[in-house]
Amino acid sequence: MIKVGIVGGTGYTGVELLRLLAVHPDVQLTAITSRKEDGLPVADMFPSLRGRVNLAFSAPDNVDLTKCDVVFFATPHGVAMAQAPALLAAGVKVIDLAADFRIKDKDVFEKWYKIPHTCPELLDEAVYGLVELNREQIKGARLIANPGCYPTTMQLGFYPLLKAKLIDTTSLIADSKSGVSGAGRKAEIGTLFSEASDNFKAYGVSGHRHTPETSAQLQRYTDSPVSLVFTPHLVPMIRGMHSTLYARLTSDIANEDLQALFEKEYAGSAFVDVMPFGSHPETRSTRGSNMLRLALHRPGNGNMLVILVVQDNLVKGASGQAVQCMNLMFGLDETTGLQQIALLP
Amino acid sequence: MIKVGIVGGTGYTGVELLRLLAVHPDVQLTAITSRKEDGLPVADMFPSLRGRVNLAFSAPDNVDLTKCDVVFFATPHGVAMAQAPALLAAGVKVIDLAADFRIKDKDVFEKWYKIPHTCPELLDEAVYGLVELNREQIKGARLIANPGCYPTTMQLGFYPLLKAKLIDTTSLIADSKSGVSGAGRKAEIGTLFSEASDNFKAYGVSGHRHTPETSAQLQRYTDSPVSLVFTPHLVPMIRGMHSTLYARLTSDIANEDLQALFEKEYAGSAFVDVMPFGSHPETRSTRGSNMLRLALHRPGNGNMLVILVVQDNLVKGASGQAVQCMNLMFGLDETTGLQQIALLP
Amino acid sequence: MIKVGIVGGTGYTGVELLRLLAVHPDVQLTAITSRKEDGLPVADMFPSLRGRVNLAFSAPDNVDLTKCDVVFFATPHGVAMAQAPALLAAGVKVIDLAADFRIKDKDVFEKWYKIPHTCPELLDEAVYGLVELNREQIKGARLIANPGCYPTTMQLGFYPLLKAKLIDTTSLIADSKSGVSGAGRKAEIGTLFSEASDNFKAYGVSGHRHTPETSAQLQRYTDSPVSLVFTPHLVPMIRGMHSTLYARLTSDIANEDLQALFEKEYAGSAFVDVMPFGSHPETRSTRGSNMLRLALHRPGNGNMLVILVVQDNLVKGASGQAVQCMNLMFGLDETTGLQQIALLP
Amino acid sequence: MIKVGIVGGTGYTGVELLRLLAVHPDVQLTAITSRKEDGLPVADMFPSLRGRVNLAFSAPDNVDLTKCDVVFFATPHGVAMAQAPALLAAGVKVIDLAADFRIKDKDVFEKWYKIPHTCPELLDEAVYGLVELNREQIKGARLIANPGCYPTTMQLGFYPLLKAKLIDTTSLIADSKSGVSGAGRKAEIGTLFSEASDNFKAYGVSGHRHTPETSAQLQRYTDSPVSLVFTPHLVPMIRGMHSTLYARLTSDIANEDLQALFEKEYAGSAFVDVMPFGSHPETRSTRGSNMLRLALHRPGNGNMLVILVVQDNLVKGASGQAVQCMNLMFGLDETTGLQQIALLP
Repeated sequence: MIKVGIVGGTGYTGVELLRLLAVHPDVQLTAITSRKEDGLPVADMFPSLRGRVNLAFSAPDNVDLTKCDVVFFATPHGVAMAQAPALLAAGVKVIDLAADFRIKDKDVFEKWYKIPHTCPELLDEAVYGLVELNREQIKGARLIANPGCYPTTMQLGFYPLLKAKLIDTTSLIADSKSGVSGAGRKAEIGTLFSEASDNFKAYGVSGHRHTPETSAQLQRYTDSPVSLVFTPHLVPMIRGMHSTLYARLTSDIANEDLQALFEKEYAGSAFVDVMPFGSHPETRSTRGSNMLRLALHRPGNGNMLVILVVQDNLVKGASGQAVQCMNLMFGLDETTGLQQIALLP
Repeated sequence: MIKVGIVGGTGYTGVELLRLLAVHPDVQLTAITSRKEDGLPVADMFPSLRGRVNLAFSAPDNVDLTKCDVVFFATPHGVAMAQAPALLAAGVKVIDLAADFRIKDKDVFEKWYKIPHTCPELLDEAVYGLVELNREQIKGARLIANPGCYPTTMQLGFYPLLKAKLIDTTSLIADSKSGVSGAGRKAEIGTLFSEASDNFKAYGVSGHRHTPETSAQLQRYTDSPVSLVFTPHLVPMIRGMHSTLYARLTSDIANEDLQALFEKEYAGSAFVDVMPFGSHPETRSTRGSNMLRLALHRPGNGNMLVILVVQDNLVKGASGQAVQCMNLMFGLDETTGLQQIALLP
Repeated sequence: MIKVGIVGGTGYTGVELLRLLAVHPDVQLTAITSRKEDGLPVADMFPSLRGRVNLAFSAPDNVDLTKCDVVFFATPHGVAMAQAPALLAAGVKVIDLAADFRIKDKDVFEKWYKIPHTCPELLDEAVYGLVELNREQIKGARLIANPGCYPTTMQLGFYPLLKAKLIDTTSLIADSKSGVSGAGRKAEIGTLFSEASDNFKAYGVSGHRHTPETSAQLQRYTDSPVSLVFTPHLVPMIRGMHSTLYARLTSDIANEDLQALFEKEYAGSAFVDVMPFGSHPETRSTRGSNMLRLALHRPGNGNMLVILVVQDNLVKGASGQAVQCMNLMFGLDETTGLQQIALLP
Repeated sequence: MIKVGIVGGTGYTGVELLRLLAVHPDVQLTAITSRKEDGLPVADMFPSLRGRVNLAFSAPDNVDLTKCDVVFFATPHGVAMAQAPALLAAGVKVIDLAADFRIKDKDVFEKWYKIPHTCPELLDEAVYGLVELNREQIKGARLIANPGCYPTTMQLGFYPLLKAKLIDTTSLIADSKSGVSGAGRKAEIGTLFSEASDNFKAYGVSGHRHTPETSAQLQRYTDSPVSLVFTPHLVPMIRGMHSTLYARLTSDIANEDLQALFEKEYAGSAFVDVMPFGSHPETRSTRGSNMLRLALHRPGNGNMLVILVVQDNLVKGASGQAVQCMNLMFGLDETTGLQQIALLP
């Protein structure tokens, strides 16, 4: 059994880790920390876990995480970089669900996240945890930078096209939409029910932290300079993410060949579902599951390819992806404990 | 492996059965019928099942259900009564999720459901599938009448009080609220998003079919005449049911004794969670799971006891309960395949 | 033109006052205060008011409210009682949308609101602003205690029955449901979209501040001792309130006579709509309007009368009612500026 | 008083016309037709109109619409073209909220709408009712083709840029999102609450009827060939539309000049609100009002301009726009009866 610790268990990615790990056949939940909720049984905060998770929150100082085999950080940015070195030194693997190790360039990180990076020496070692594109590296990793939710959809949608050199890399557009849980479990007026319900808006259009992360990753797959316009929006739903990707084809390629390209690329990936050409994937078809589904469109048979990508932002976009990484790091099949079927309706 | 057939798989209780049974370790999905969708792969209608359920719908005439070990009817009222006799005669067990066998009195059934009962000779044999109150009978049953969603909450809430003769049986009130999926997957204006969202209303206040079902069952647990006022309401949420039950105490009993009464009654029932006295159970704490949670309140320490009961109307209120019955009928632990943790948030 | 000041304009009742008063033909918006937002144009916080309200928020110390004819307090409890005496002394009328003057008994107020009442000498003078039951008193009032949202529905539903001595006053039940805006525009986890959406729960079942307010008012209409059980619930919708009231009839009265009783009682009240017997009023039929609609039911023709009452909690339940009071206090027709038709769908 | 008839009053654009016209100071509602609901009081179907609209539906054969001054068609495509000639001949003005007269090219219409155009002789005369771009023509029109909801947002967003020749006309992208009421009040499974709630999806990506309408209109404003990719999506909200427009700048222009261009263009248009550069307009800021709000963004100060446009799809996107046209046709100020402030929250 893998002994698992979770740092920061009171947010949505934390409780989602608990939901997944509580039924994972190879995991023993060992510790969960919260500075504010020391001593509170987890199930008192999240009644959905009554009878299923018997742990209580521990203050960070009251628990020895070095007894874990792996520690997940479901914390705000900045926490993992402070604690990772000691854990790694003690032989504990680390999976950070925040951004501390996602961006290799320290300066870029500091520009976008407005905090100093206190642990730059680990940036090179950290493996970007997008399983479908980094599977082998993840198997041998000690430290995982779990991808952002939006970047997961953008990369899995653009990757086969970049790799095959089929598109203009300088005019990529991602028009993305996220459910409100992506904003986290923080007391803020903007995400109150009475503000976010029955409403739709864009945010961060002039610049969002997921742009540099995604651009840098996309650049790894092509020699051409990548330029991406990314427009996030807030959807009045709890879970779900939909990215509508626009890529201009630079060569004359048949739709069947595009479809075949994607199907071949993801043939070995249990959690990427390439739907039939012209499909309209719905976010709810992934609700609560680790699946990402995508479909290709070519409006008017012109040179603009539209790729529709959906996932549950808390599962494949966060905690499910993290567990998928853990599975690989411990030699398990990557689907272990992640076979939940989406909740529909 | 239990060979399972589903009659009428295009509604919400049908797709919920598929979600649960597709991961049930002892079940082999064998057939699923739909008169209208003959030949259509199930996953084309419900993309959440892509890669997980490979069956296609079959027209009823194209499939031999007698090869199944058990057949679930997720159909409108009237279908199961027509097909059950032949199936039972062939040694197939039958679980009806509709109302055909819920009401023992043929005349009462016909008055409320406005159709003739074509199979009254099975009414006596049919076992009412409320596991917590009928466990032993269900184990030996051939034919199960799966309870209505509302009646499940009302019975499990009132039962310990009736059994202990603590309340005035003539003034029971159930003020119940259901998510919209309870209305089924039918094209109707009243349950369109634009009609049901951002709205709340009561319906059927002057008379609802679940009143006679519940009254008759409650009467089984007491010698005193039962009189119930039941008021259902429609909540703008997909899944979830909340019953607020009002019972007038007839004896002077301490709150701790009331709490102990409920805890003792349901101590052996894995799917009934008696929360601490004064708790406010939320429907989302059961979303997608087979749990029913309840809590007791005594406003102003008067003689009115308020019992709050929540469940997922499609799981414990329908398909999960049906699978729970199936487990017992086939000698399995009743929790087999039903350990999904509620999806929160 | 009536010169109007608003104290505390950043909450939902404040912005709702602005929406109503900005188009009121006899009102000149003169000042709106906010300690935190001094100098911020109101329309920057509420873009719905762009081009329609050109005021900026003023810190309380930067504005002389004694130049107003009337001041509305859309503040937390405790603010109006501190400022009302000086305003009244200066000849300014005061309408408090909070609870400071709703409860005549200082001790009861202090028990439920946990703050000392600093202005008990005004409790007797304050007029309870439920127009339909207090119209004449309101016309002459200097100081209005605007009713709570729940109490409005309970009183207008029970009043004709109490007055006619038709019901058992000791077993009143109000099972009430409110949209989330009733919780106000405060940064709190419990009312985040991701917490409150797709969910339903009761709250405050063991005791809610609206119980003593309502009980005291109901007691004014009958000699018999009133006993009320009130159970509030939270509905995943922004606006709207639905009270399901249960009253036990003590005399044998025909349904037509009950209906006639209500119709006669509210014949002169433009904002109370007595729907046909057996109707199911929907909250959305009042969304954004000052209407309260109600309908009577008698399940199984027994002795339990069920009264369904709906309103928009921010309009008839708060700001609309306050404007209705203002109209009367200034000699206007009570419907002036309040003729908005509900937004449906 | 303008005598108004409405053909097809049972859908959402019909009831929205009623909401607006019932309080319009210069309008007398004269007739409203519905083939199926002959004799039913309008307020029985839409309780929000109780006490405000006393008309009953009339079967088309039972009412003489030639006595009206203007007739609105809130009908499916194909109805207005059949009835318009006779009405126009009788001197009645006609405003069609459907698509019958939106597309000047009969063949294009028939290709996209799959019905023969029975009245092509009126296509030239019909005036496209987008007030801000066609104001003078509308004043003299007898027959108005009210624009589609999506096309309104796309045209008002792209127009100033096309007119000023600032963008590449061959790579326009409109990523649009609509509330569910845009799908109408029809009994369909796809727009049930349980299907559309807590979900997000694109639809019609390969081709939508609003593409040819918009392309043809945009082409009127430029000599360069227009090429548009339009991607509509369904948002789980009742009302509201958000278009995210992408236009590639072809000249080096400062952001302030772009902002000034838009502000100048719409300075005389009361219902177009050009928000400050970099704003994020929310759909709810237009809920129930006739306002369209837009804002410009330039991510990374590159050559891609992003224009965010919001409106209420049933008001500025349909019925409000139609009333705005009517006002001009009858010599009224275009804002008459359209001053409702958006309902927020």
